[in-house]
Amino acid sequence: MRQLILPSSYEGEGDLTLSGKESRYLVRVLRLSEGDRVAGRTVDGQSQSFIITKVTKGGCTLTPTDEEITERQEALPAYQGPFPNLVLLQCLLKGRKEDEVVRQAAEIGVATIALVESQHCVATAKERANQRLERLNTKVREALQQSGSPVPTNIEPKILPLSDLPSWWNHRGPLLFFHQAEKGQVRNLQEVLAHHRPEGPVGLLIGPEGGFSDTEYEHLIAAGCIPVLLKTNILRSETAALYTLSAIQVLLNERL
Amino acid sequence: MRQLILPSSYEGEGDLTLSGKESRYLVRVLRLSEGDRVAGRTVDGQSQSFIITKVTKGGCTLTPTDEEITERQEALPAYQGPFPNLVLLQCLLKGRKEDEVVRQAAEIGVATIALVESQHCVATAKERANQRLERLNTKVREALQQSGSPVPTNIEPKILPLSDLPSWWNHRGPLLFFHQAEKGQVRNLQEVLAHHRPEGPVGLLIGPEGGFSDTEYEHLIAAGCIPVLLKTNILRSETAALYTLSAIQVLLNERL
Repeated sequence: MRQLILPSSYEGEGDLTLSGKESRYLVRVLRLSEGDRVAGRTVDGQSQSFIITKVTKGGCTLTPTDEEITERQEALPAYQGPFPNLVLLQCLLKGRKEDEVVRQAAEIGVATIALVESQHCVATAKERANQRLERLNTKVREALQQSGSPVPTNIEPKILPLSDLPSWWNHRGPLLFFHQAEKGQVRNLQEVLAHHRPEGPVGLLIGPEGGFSDTEYEHLIAAGCIPVLLKTNILRSETAALYTLSAIQVLLNERL
Repeated sequence: MRQLILPSSYEGEGDLTLSGKESRYLVRVLRLSEGDRVAGRTVDGQSQSFIITKVTKGGCTLTPTDEEITERQEALPAYQGPFPNLVLLQCLLKGRKEDEVVRQAAEIGVATIALVESQHCVATAKERANQRLERLNTKVREALQQSGSPVPTNIEPKILPLSDLPSWWNHRGPLLFFHQAEKGQVRNLQEVLAHHRPEGPVGLLIGPEGGFSDTEYEHLIAAGCIPVLLKTNILRSETAALYTLSAIQVLLNERL
């Protein structure tokens, strides 16, 4: 764990008492004890350091400190940003695949993730909606703790029907989707992003295994979404997400 | 399955008889029967179409044909290249993670994968070397069949000690490795690849979870390997591989 993601209930002052899984992780796995320092980050992305002031059988108490925690085990300092404002719009996948996409997106510093229901999705939105959100938030938390990401990845609580996507997005920046079109009008990633300010949000819509239907394609085009041609093989949905997020992050971050 | 990867024993002429898993996949899962067409590709990457001419209880027989197989289920045609010549040099990982890296690398069209043993690897080279190669070749085959990749991903049969890497690579192109350095001399990916011809090989060395030791770092630098700074979080090794492969493939492919 490179940082402890603080519970959303923590108000930023006073002692923090941890029990259960989180406490066990600090005390048993990382073998931290009284007097040790822990780098923390609030769910809003603010960093806050702590000293472990008490360890009991059932939990531990952390007291906030103004000291900066320096990297201990890592020889290499982590990049601390800036990060481009990436928004992943991921069509529903089966559980384990969806977990992995969300985990990796949080790991590399994606700002927002929303799940989208489209015609060819294998999983449906009705399936365990609350459970799904809880599960994905756990994945985000784990990824932020492990990667030390300063970007507090936020999951949109509502699953969006594809038809509502344009109004939800509300023209906040380019919204790209990937399409292996034979027609001439599709541009590549570097062309599409050539004049994008890295600070502004970019939306990436990743289709389901079965792709988008013709109706959906027309709807997306009519709403101003930008079809992008990726010169690669037809990727599984879970590979496509990380593939495009990585390429866009590198293109934009290297301008920052 | 978008294509059948032919057994290496197939000489390119005459009927091909399949039994076991492969036959079951064609007949039971894809529900192909006598008279149906199958797109095939040799282990060298040549495409060869077949007609299923016989289905028995234990197997099926495929007869080569000069017909081109058109995409059936897919509404979208697959990109058929060119692909840049990517060489992934992956430090050993634990089984399941290594499988996933190899699978995804083959899926996106990496030409060559070699496993590298370095000081901080969690898995050692002695551990099941033959079994490992067989397992990874199975992953490659599955990925090529599913993605329809025209690039016949090749796995180097020998696990390379990091110290032998420069002589194995033998200056065939830039060999990049990723390093979160605070020193000023590290360049970013677009700078490093600015003048690279997309057809020439690029090597990407992905470190183990624990990173490279100081000795290894000095050795790599002395051998002319190029440290690249990625402006992102510290990634897990399995995420780092796809992250960098994706970014480099997009940068180079969009020039082709």
